[in-house]
Amino acid sequence: MGDSGEFVRVFDTTLRDGEQAARVNLNTGEKVQIARQLERLRVDIIEAGFPASSPGDFDAVRQVVAEVRPPIIAALARTKEQDITAAGEALAGAAHARIHIFLATSPIHMEYKLKMTKDEVLKEVGSAVKFARGIVRDVEFSAEDASRSEIDFLVEVFTLAIESGATTLNIPDTVGYAMPLEFGDFCGAIIKRVNKPGVTWSVHCHNDLGLGVANSLSAVRSGVRQVECTINGLGERAGNASMEEIVMSLRTRSDHFGADTRIDTTKFFSTSKLVSNLTGVLVQPNKAIVGVNAFAHEAGIHQHGMLCNRATYEIMTPESVGSPGTDLHLGKHSGRHAFNERVENLGYHMTTEQGERAFEYFKVLCDKKKEVSDGDIEAFLTDRIIDVIPERNYELKDFAVTVASGGKPTASITLVHKDQEITEAAVGNGPVDAAYKAILKILSFEPELAEFRIRSTSELADALGEAHVILRYKDIKAQGRGASTDIIEATIRAYIEAVNRLYHSAAAREVKI
Amino acid sequence: MGDSGEFVRVFDTTLRDGEQAARVNLNTGEKVQIARQLERLRVDIIEAGFPASSPGDFDAVRQVVAEVRPPIIAALARTKEQDITAAGEALAGAAHARIHIFLATSPIHMEYKLKMTKDEVLKEVGSAVKFARGIVRDVEFSAEDASRSEIDFLVEVFTLAIESGATTLNIPDTVGYAMPLEFGDFCGAIIKRVNKPGVTWSVHCHNDLGLGVANSLSAVRSGVRQVECTINGLGERAGNASMEEIVMSLRTRSDHFGADTRIDTTKFFSTSKLVSNLTGVLVQPNKAIVGVNAFAHEAGIHQHGMLCNRATYEIMTPESVGSPGTDLHLGKHSGRHAFNERVENLGYHMTTEQGERAFEYFKVLCDKKKEVSDGDIEAFLTDRIIDVIPERNYELKDFAVTVASGGKPTASITLVHKDQEITEAAVGNGPVDAAYKAILKILSFEPELAEFRIRSTSELADALGEAHVILRYKDIKAQGRGASTDIIEATIRAYIEAVNRLYHSAAAREVKI
Repeated sequence: MGDSGEFVRVFDTTLRDGEQAARVNLNTGEKVQIARQLERLRVDIIEAGFPASSPGDFDAVRQVVAEVRPPIIAALARTKEQDITAAGEALAGAAHARIHIFLATSPIHMEYKLKMTKDEVLKEVGSAVKFARGIVRDVEFSAEDASRSEIDFLVEVFTLAIESGATTLNIPDTVGYAMPLEFGDFCGAIIKRVNKPGVTWSVHCHNDLGLGVANSLSAVRSGVRQVECTINGLGERAGNASMEEIVMSLRTRSDHFGADTRIDTTKFFSTSKLVSNLTGVLVQPNKAIVGVNAFAHEAGIHQHGMLCNRATYEIMTPESVGSPGTDLHLGKHSGRHAFNERVENLGYHMTTEQGERAFEYFKVLCDKKKEVSDGDIEAFLTDRIIDVIPERNYELKDFAVTVASGGKPTASITLVHKDQEITEAAVGNGPVDAAYKAILKILSFEPELAEFRIRSTSELADALGEAHVILRYKDIKAQGRGASTDIIEATIRAYIEAVNRLYHSAAAREVKI
Repeated sequence: MGDSGEFVRVFDTTLRDGEQAARVNLNTGEKVQIARQLERLRVDIIEAGFPASSPGDFDAVRQVVAEVRPPIIAALARTKEQDITAAGEALAGAAHARIHIFLATSPIHMEYKLKMTKDEVLKEVGSAVKFARGIVRDVEFSAEDASRSEIDFLVEVFTLAIESGATTLNIPDTVGYAMPLEFGDFCGAIIKRVNKPGVTWSVHCHNDLGLGVANSLSAVRSGVRQVECTINGLGERAGNASMEEIVMSLRTRSDHFGADTRIDTTKFFSTSKLVSNLTGVLVQPNKAIVGVNAFAHEAGIHQHGMLCNRATYEIMTPESVGSPGTDLHLGKHSGRHAFNERVENLGYHMTTEQGERAFEYFKVLCDKKKEVSDGDIEAFLTDRIIDVIPERNYELKDFAVTVASGGKPTASITLVHKDQEITEAAVGNGPVDAAYKAILKILSFEPELAEFRIRSTSELADALGEAHVILRYKDIKAQGRGASTDIIEATIRAYIEAVNRLYHSAAAREVKI
């Protein structure tokens, strides 16, 4: 926290609203990795999930409670008693637990979605908050779609929520409709009219028009003291307000806000990369604060200015957000200490056994590549070390793929399944297609390929190729990642990893494959 | 333009400030493609380049002037006479030409970068604007780093610029330091104190704290009537204010602004994809307006709401920004008309001859793939049809690549160079590395691989793989792209394309390879 007086709580919802983003599918182990890094980043509240929404969410909240200590752990719930009970059970044992209840208050949501009158909404809010207070001491209430709600009604709802026991009151701009000036005024008017000292006012802004950060900051100027946000601005549709942009605005312009957060901003870059790696959602190069170009000065005039005085074109240093500037590389002469330090800087948390395996693999990689980049390390950690599922139905034994301008791409694959080796071959439109067709011949079921992405981890020819696959079978989705200096091997590994995870998820849900 | 009274000019600087972004390197043909699409988008001003900065920029401005008609074409210049002369020459023949002059006015820029006093800055601005008015009638003046300048001095500078003949006055937030509330007040105060009716006030906001769009909008509320922005928010560091977000905010919230633009918003999605494809800069999925997730509703509660009434979670329709929602696919039964229409919707402009070749290749692709996606079409247009250089020093004859878990990745490549076939083979850490090593053995020089990226064009196993390569040799950079259902073939094609373009650029600059 800076010198300035007041402090703004940072409520991270990467694991809840962020994970709701299309094409994002984190398992419990991945969520715990992110939660641990959020703890190091010193966020005040981690919203770990929506326990009533799925068994996976319930488990993830439980596991975050078990493994992460200092921050407040929050769980989302509708006003239904079973939701609140599930949230309470998932949070059991937390040092500091919060139940976060929401109900929509806008005319359009009440009429079309809830099909409830104002009186019904009020009654529901009062009883839900009271019920939650019977389970935990810290209850937050959100008026969904608040920015399109009538202010008179909102004042009534928030007043009742406070009288029923809520201590944090959240004003979401659920659909990203608000404009900074009016939203600041709106929040200020609500706070003044409700007039209950001792509670914390919060906002939760979406980014549909690109204004999530600006709206959050405008609300802080009006007295709001909690911001709900996500790493990289991940979230439904165009995402949530981005934590790193809000926090760096407050820090860089504390003269303007007179308020700051407790965040350790030097962890932003690594946290951003961790979240991007585990979710598979890329961060664009021109993303503020954490994009790879955020501190890149290209024009001759800018470079000249920077040489004269960095402040000509730089309002914050790359170091202040943990941006490495140039990617540092490790190599065969790097020892265990340097490697472990790098892994920690990248935001990964490993057990001793994982650390051993990671270092061993690092040494193997050093024999293949002269320089091992951060991207390489991240790729093999997520692919081979972190949260690899304990039991594998299929193991890759060997493969061969040939492409040539004359003939059809051809692949042969050998998998080990229940101690048996099975080999199949296939042709396809490309090497990936051929390999996947060969694998499908081996499997006893036919999962659908819901997502397929490849990329290079750095910008050299011997970069690791990274593949990301999501398979779907009977409504169960599982993701797999693969990384290798051989992009073909990476795509094969990713597919098999997803197959194994699919078995694992199906078994947990008692679905037969 | 909407119903509301006033109109805001959209000044696009994708080709100038956008192209200044790190790792972006557009050639003239690519710039013309983008300029043509900006014309269809109906921007008011296209800033086509900075002619004095390089021969490439000079050529590009000339070519945009030759091929694009309705919008105003602007060229950037420092206050130096040779810059202004170069801008004037590059703009010669334009239906409507603007020279855009800039000079910094902040204490830190004047002291450390310019090493000029206030009086010297004033004198320079006056004479530069007068000199430019001797060449064109439309002169814009930008006070670089205005948001960190003293307001009294700015009022003096802008007053003098207007008296010297400038008709558009730009207030840039060059380093992305401003906060929306103060920036709006700041612009409003300048406009009021300068008090010259008949001129157009403009802003140019950077996105270092994620506030470029909010600052631009706040300025519009204060009477600014030109916004400088880029497609996808491309630009130096964290980029410029994003055009699509500014325009959709004005459109969606015309009640709040009472002002609108002339933009055809249904062209946003295709323009975004065109710029992303040609620059190689990815758009993150959660990017507002044009990200692939911008209109994706994932949570069960949201989907339920959307089924009841789209307006519960949607403040603008995907159709209004030309987002296809689901990717439409073409196939072997698609005719020439459907294909041409799709190409045009994707923002590409082809000659008749290019159209012929494109349709031929499309038919070949239909034999390999059942469904041809927009991503596939874009990939092969940029790879094989648009702006392929006329003369090729090296042509790919054939290739063969084998990877297998037992042995080393191996590649053989045959290139045709001056009617001679040359074949080489090599092993590498992966198939790409092996293929590039084989090509290097064939070449008579050794370019450095400055950038290397691969990705899949859609999320199916038979997606086209797309590779993007930048090679550097003696300070000359050239990019190459390759697309194929075979990712290995795509990477080989991209490399060879870059080699050929390197020869082309070197010849243009009279550098011997």
